[in-house]
Amino acid sequence: MQPRSTAELQAALAKVAIVLVEPKYAENIGAAARGAMNMGVSQLIVVRREAPDREKMARMATHHAVSLLDNLALFPDLETALAPFSVVVGTTARQGRQRRPPNTPRVMVEKVIPLLAENRVAILFGPEHRGLTNDDLKFCKFTSSIPTAEFTSLNLAQAVAIHCYELYHGLLFGDGAADSSPKLAATRELEGMYDHVAQLLRQVEFLKEGRAEGENDYWMNSIRKFFGRQELQAKEVKMIRGFCKQFLRYEKEKRG
Amino acid sequence: MQPRSTAELQAALAKVAIVLVEPKYAENIGAAARGAMNMGVSQLIVVRREAPDREKMARMATHHAVSLLDNLALFPDLETALAPFSVVVGTTARQGRQRRPPNTPRVMVEKVIPLLAENRVAILFGPEHRGLTNDDLKFCKFTSSIPTAEFTSLNLAQAVAIHCYELYHGLLFGDGAADSSPKLAATRELEGMYDHVAQLLRQVEFLKEGRAEGENDYWMNSIRKFFGRQELQAKEVKMIRGFCKQFLRYEKEKRG
Repeated sequence: MQPRSTAELQAALAKVAIVLVEPKYAENIGAAARGAMNMGVSQLIVVRREAPDREKMARMATHHAVSLLDNLALFPDLETALAPFSVVVGTTARQGRQRRPPNTPRVMVEKVIPLLAENRVAILFGPEHRGLTNDDLKFCKFTSSIPTAEFTSLNLAQAVAIHCYELYHGLLFGDGAADSSPKLAATRELEGMYDHVAQLLRQVEFLKEGRAEGENDYWMNSIRKFFGRQELQAKEVKMIRGFCKQFLRYEKEKRG
Repeated sequence: MQPRSTAELQAALAKVAIVLVEPKYAENIGAAARGAMNMGVSQLIVVRREAPDREKMARMATHHAVSLLDNLALFPDLETALAPFSVVVGTTARQGRQRRPPNTPRVMVEKVIPLLAENRVAILFGPEHRGLTNDDLKFCKFTSSIPTAEFTSLNLAQAVAIHCYELYHGLLFGDGAADSSPKLAATRELEGMYDHVAQLLRQVEFLKEGRAEGENDYWMNSIRKFFGRQELQAKEVKMIRGFCKQFLRYEKEKRG
């Protein structure tokens, strides 16, 4: 295959956003913006209640990456931030003794690049002190762990830089134009579907109101995992929601 | 080939040093120390007249990487710092329009890893505002450029992190134990040889005292390039120096 043209490269990179979930230090946001900009990634999303200190961000971003800060999108919660994205990647620290994580940034990028033709991709990074929670990870189709030596905790901006570097490297040196990839359902559509599925499951008392919250969460997470593996397309999500709605309507009429 | 054992991995990483040439900000030194430590690289060398602010470094290094700062080696000049190293890598920014640099960190690491069995390796990073000079690069056997989009100027610590990541990735996932690689001459031996060669060339008036300094430099740089390509071993350097010394002695006696 032919290497990508500059236009193809830019079109692919325009589909990617870096999402920082509750970053503590504005300096890290600025440094992450610079690292992303070096690799042609120009969308930065911050999930946080208060706007970060502009001056502290700008100092680390340098004036070259200030455009990312001007366009920085701030959201109070992750689900709203992810609504338009159909491929969500969660970054996590290497686990315990597993010296060679199977899902390195390089492996992740190989899977994600073919999807860029038809899908918007969000790469999530957790807060400095603890990383992403399981609750954050439930939105993620893929995960990515940077291999490290004993000391596993990476600086947030360096983790962003390494991921953006791998993505850019993969686009630049990888095989040519992305294969025709399916247009997957976006987070907004998927979350709507999960709401409908949960309603249906409560209706048939598969999920029970009186039950400990953890147990219902357990089943919903299993269902998320099951659907997560299916590469659901938008029209399929619509069909599943249609079925749920019809079922709920039918039940209501029957009882009413 | 078999993947490396942890002991082999550690032995290889122990041969590597990150050399920061005149870094301006102590925070960047600390952040670079952390990035190196994440990837098992534990030698940090700073070439700078004054010792950097310890507190500013430590804040960015976090307490996990403070050991690197405790062992930080400070040198007033690059040649002294590089004396024990036989493989020196210079990192440079991507040049102008060359979108796909041939000497990426990944390509460099492939060349350097087999040499780690018998050689100490220094990876050089220039100051934040201008990078390495041609004078710094004359010590370098290899160069490495991180591919970037339009905005080519990387944060110093992020450039260190990306290089250490590639090195660690290459050691972890690359082919097994390094092939038997030659023990190359160290910078100390090479610089001694170049001194002897220059003396000889002045003696025979190939280099001329009266000449513009730039012209002599031009010839010496050509000679450095020529010898640089030869992968000179310690014993070969000794032989070349022996010849130079003998020639100079002979000339002196003949004239004396």
